[in-house]
Order: sequence, then structure tokens, then C-alpha cells
Amino acid sequence: MYAITIREAGEPDVLEWREVPTPEPGPGEVAVDVTAAGVNRADVAQRQGSYPPPEGASELLGLECSGTVAEVGAGVTGWRPGDAVCALLAGGGYAERVVVPVTQLLPIPTGVDPVDAAGLPEVVCTVWSNIVHEAGLERGQLLLVHGGSGGIGTCAIQLGRALGAQVAATAGGGPGLRLCEELGAEPAVDYREQDFVAEVKRLGGANVILDNMGGSYLDRNLSALAPDGHLAVIGMQGGRKAELDMGKMLMKRLRMSALGLRGRPLEGPHGKAAIVADVRQRAWPMIERGEVRPVVHHRLPMREAARAHELMEAGGVHGKILLTTE
Amino acid sequence: MYAITIREAGEPDVLEWREVPTPEPGPGEVAVDVTAAGVNRADVAQRQGSYPPPEGASELLGLECSGTVAEVGAGVTGWRPGDAVCALLAGGGYAERVVVPVTQLLPIPTGVDPVDAAGLPEVVCTVWSNIVHEAGLERGQLLLVHGGSGGIGTCAIQLGRALGAQVAATAGGGPGLRLCEELGAEPAVDYREQDFVAEVKRLGGANVILDNMGGSYLDRNLSALAPDGHLAVIGMQGGRKAELDMGKMLMKRLRMSALGLRGRPLEGPHGKAAIVADVRQRAWPMIERGEVRPVVHHRLPMREAARAHELMEAGGVHGKILLTTE
Repeated sequence: MYAITIREAGEPDVLEWREVPTPEPGPGEVAVDVTAAGVNRADVAQRQGSYPPPEGASELLGLECSGTVAEVGAGVTGWRPGDAVCALLAGGGYAERVVVPVTQLLPIPTGVDPVDAAGLPEVVCTVWSNIVHEAGLERGQLLLVHGGSGGIGTCAIQLGRALGAQVAATAGGGPGLRLCEELGAEPAVDYREQDFVAEVKRLGGANVILDNMGGSYLDRNLSALAPDGHLAVIGMQGGRKAELDMGKMLMKRLRMSALGLRGRPLEGPHGKAAIVADVRQRAWPMIERGEVRPVVHHRLPMREAARAHELMEAGGVHGKILLTTE
Repeated sequence: MYAITIREAGEPDVLEWREVPTPEPGPGEVAVDVTAAGVNRADVAQRQGSYPPPEGASELLGLECSGTVAEVGAGVTGWRPGDAVCALLAGGGYAERVVVPVTQLLPIPTGVDPVDAAGLPEVVCTVWSNIVHEAGLERGQLLLVHGGSGGIGTCAIQLGRALGAQVAATAGGGPGLRLCEELGAEPAVDYREQDFVAEVKRLGGANVILDNMGGSYLDRNLSALAPDGHLAVIGMQGGRKAELDMGKMLMKRLRMSALGLRGRPLEGPHGKAAIVADVRQRAWPMIERGEVRPVVHHRLPMREAARAHELMEAGGVHGKILLTTE
């Protein structure tokens, strides 16, 4: 099969469409012929050499895909060759075929285009595991989403609203802000012009913050939280280090987490299988009812993955970039 | 009645035994004639002016006491004048009488001396709400307790063991280390001589850390945690600020919390009533079975509260200091 390979750590032009061995499904695994793969910021970090795949995972890029079941391994029940699926991956999505544990397969939600579905698994599982499982967002609470117009952000705004929360979102510039508002953010805050701390405090403070910035936002995020609030860090576009004022945390009884999805164990209460199962049961119906829709910025042929990475790094991507195999 | 009052923020000699108005129980409240009050580090901070009481709470010092029910307010059932009790307080324990919401009363555990019981409510509720409710410590996991020979630490080691966890503890110097070991810590680590990170990593890393140091231990605590670990900060004897490496958190999927007990709401899932009820149901039997015993360093007459604070500030207190009214 063909796949995108990384010649060496570096700029986007290290990505090459080359022939590689076709993976075979082991027991409990399923081989999927890939229709499309979602592009994530983690893929850029992996290409640059700063985010190696977890032990045992594919060396190839790609944390989510959609496609068709090609073959099932020993002991797999419930799925058959030809089934339309999407999947949460530990790697390997930028390829014509990928092998995945059966517990990480999801059906294509009814009403969603099979290509667009490629951008759902990693994003929905990341958002859901953070705002629901970890932070316990409740109906009527205030969720603050940073990077509201990005792939994660567009999904988080909609999931927050579907859960009955009020959602504030930050974005930079008019088109991103308008997108956040269309998706249900209220208010959408322009981080270039406005102080998100003041905007959120005016509403009583955020109960949950989903943050992709890390260091540069840490202290402001703590200021923006309401008592008993939770800061869920999932990205560090503003650096990984910053001064932490634990006194501020103690006064308001704050919680903070930094939880990646990729390195989690498959099983156990916080494992991938449990997250995927809960997403299928509770988040997929929100998508099928039209309360949450995939927001796609761009589709590109998979062999042009380098261009996708350039777009991602240039910023201003509203929603997901998807790579298609045909 | 008489109580310890704070003349002005300052050194221990600002504490004075003076006559003050006797508090009356409102609806849902109980008046307790105090037998003894526990001394906590928070009392020292309040005396110094850096930890004001929450709105509506007594201005007097004292977060826990034992005594006898003197009078019950409207709507109170289940308790009668003369009942021997101990209580979690938002303040007011350094006094001959204190008024407390009925949901914060506990019986004296069978087999515990009524004076010693004064040192249980704040300590057990703090440890339990952090290691059980917040961090989810499980049987077979590793709990690291800093300040293992102090009032909180001696309780945390025993509760961790009673929950079926392995417990490592830090302390400074021989007597403190021996006390930790007697209570079940394995290993007890001398922070003056040994690197607790190395000691804990040798055991696979800590699943939960109960930390009273804050800033000075922050980075080392993150290093000492196992994947999916939880750092529960409850004190800042090593400063409130430090550089936080969120990259380290993300790689291991770490959680951190800084949760005081005093300012919590009375009701709700994280409120004081819920904590006290669960402590009574699950931790009190551990005390009654002898698995957890109060460790008392010193009893002093309440009018000598200044000397108790001097002892606390001098360090080297092993277990609790209690102030008795007679």
C-alpha cells in the first residue's frame, strides 16, 4: 500500500507518498481501507520530531480516519468487511489501509458524509473525555473554549451547547469569531482586542476551560475560572512552561489536568475503549440529531499532506483539514 | 463565654483569652460546649492576617473541636443536649462554646478519648476529600504523603494504609521518620538526606501525592507521579508560586488540585455535608477498628494558645496539638 512517510524530522517537505508494507490485523483488530484521514496539530509535532508515537503504535502519521472495513482479525465480532466506519487511531491514518483495535471503531453517524466523518473520532473523543469525563461539565455551567474556530474548538463549542452549557469561545479576527457565534458561542471573544478574563468574569467565571495554549494562558485561565472550576489543558501552542500560582488555585478550589488521548491504555476506566464506547452512546446521537456537525475547512488528496501541514502551521484554519485517498 | 481573640494580625502574643458574646444556634445549627480544639496550620495563617475566615463564619480561630451538645436549633433532629460530639468548623473552635451546622457534627468514634477526638474532624475530612473523593486512591496504589509526621500526615499515612494502598512518606530527621514507619509508611524518606523522587520512582511512581509544600516541591512532585497520577496540594509551606511544566503533565496525563475545605459550600456534591457524611460512613469505622488512631503531640490549656502557635511555627510537631478548655 501507499502511505505518507516522514523522511526525517523537519519541515512539511519531509512528507513523502511512498509504498510501505500493508499492515495485517491481529486478534481483536480490524483493517480499514482509508477513505479520509483527519489532520491534527499533533501530526505536525510528530513530523517535527517532538511527539514520538507511543510504544507499539504505527510509525505513520494520522490519529483518526474514516473508511471501510477490509478484514477482521481473530475474535472480532460486530463488524464485517464492507462496513462503513470511522476510527480513533494511535497512528497510521495517513495511509491507504490502517489496522485498529476493534474497540476504537465507530459507525459513521447517520447523516454525516463519509469523508467528513474522518475528522470526528480524535476530536470528539478528546473533547468529550476532557469536558465530560474529566471536568464534569454540567447543564447550565459556563464552558470557555480557546481556539474556538479550530478543529477541536468548533467541536467543543457544539458539544458544550448540546450538553446544555453556555459556551464562551476565543478566536482571532472576524471570520473565526463569526464561525464561533454561528456554532453557538456566546460570547465569542477576540483575543487580539479583548480581555477574555474580564469577559468571562462578567458572567461569573468559567466552570470549565478547554485550553490549547498552555503556558501563555495559564495564569489568565486560573483568573477566569469560577470557584471549583477545572482547567483542561490539551495543547501548548503558547509554550509548555509558566509560573503557577497555587495560592490562586487554593482560594478558588481549582483543578487542572493535562491529558493526551494517544498514549492512554486501551482498557481500564480512563482507557480508549471506555471513551469510545461512551462517545458512541452519548455524543454520536448529538451528531445524528444535527446538534453537532463536523466543520471542515479543506479537503486535500492525501499525497498532498505536506500542503495540509503548511496550512495548519500558517494558522487561520477554521475547522478540520481532511486528507482523502482518492 | 471566654474565647481566644486576635488583638491584631501578628506574632503569637496577639492571642488573648477574653470574654466575648456567647453564640446562639440558628435553624439547623447546634451549640457545642467545647472540650478541646485542634490546632491547624491554617490557624497560624489566620492569626498572621493572611487567611481571613470565609463570609459568614466566626471571626474566632479553630477549625475542629470536640465537646458536648449544649443546645439544638430549630429543625435539628438526631442530636440532643449532652451528646458527646466532635465537629468540623469554619471557625470558632478556640472558645468555650461554638455553633456549627448540624451536618458538620460527628459522634466521638468508639474507643477514642474525647479530648483526642478534637483533632480528627478537620484532618480526616481534609485527607479523605483529597485522596478519596478527588484523587480516587485505590487499593494497591502508591500514595506519597509529604509532612508525614505532622497532624495531616500522620492521619494520611494511616488512612492510606486502611484503604489498602502502599504509603510512602517524607519527614525530616529520626523521630519523625520512625513515627511514619510505625504508622505504616514504607518507605519513610528523609527529605534532608534522600531524593524522594528517586525513592518513589523506584516503586513505579506515586499514583497520588498529598502535598503540603506547594511551590518548592511542584516540579519534583510531577516527576514523582506515575502516569495518570494526581497531585493534591493542600498547603504551601514551600511557597505558593513555582514554574509549572505542562509538557511533563501532558506526557503522563497528570491531574492537579488545590482544594481547601474551609471555604466550601455546605451543600452540593463537593460540599461539607457530603464530605462529613461520607467520612462518618467510611472513615469513622476505620478509626473504631483501630486502623487509624489520632496522634497527639501535645495538650495545652486553651488560654495558652499562643504557646501552641509557637510550637507549631517552630516545627518538629509530631501529630496534633490540642487546646483544652479545662
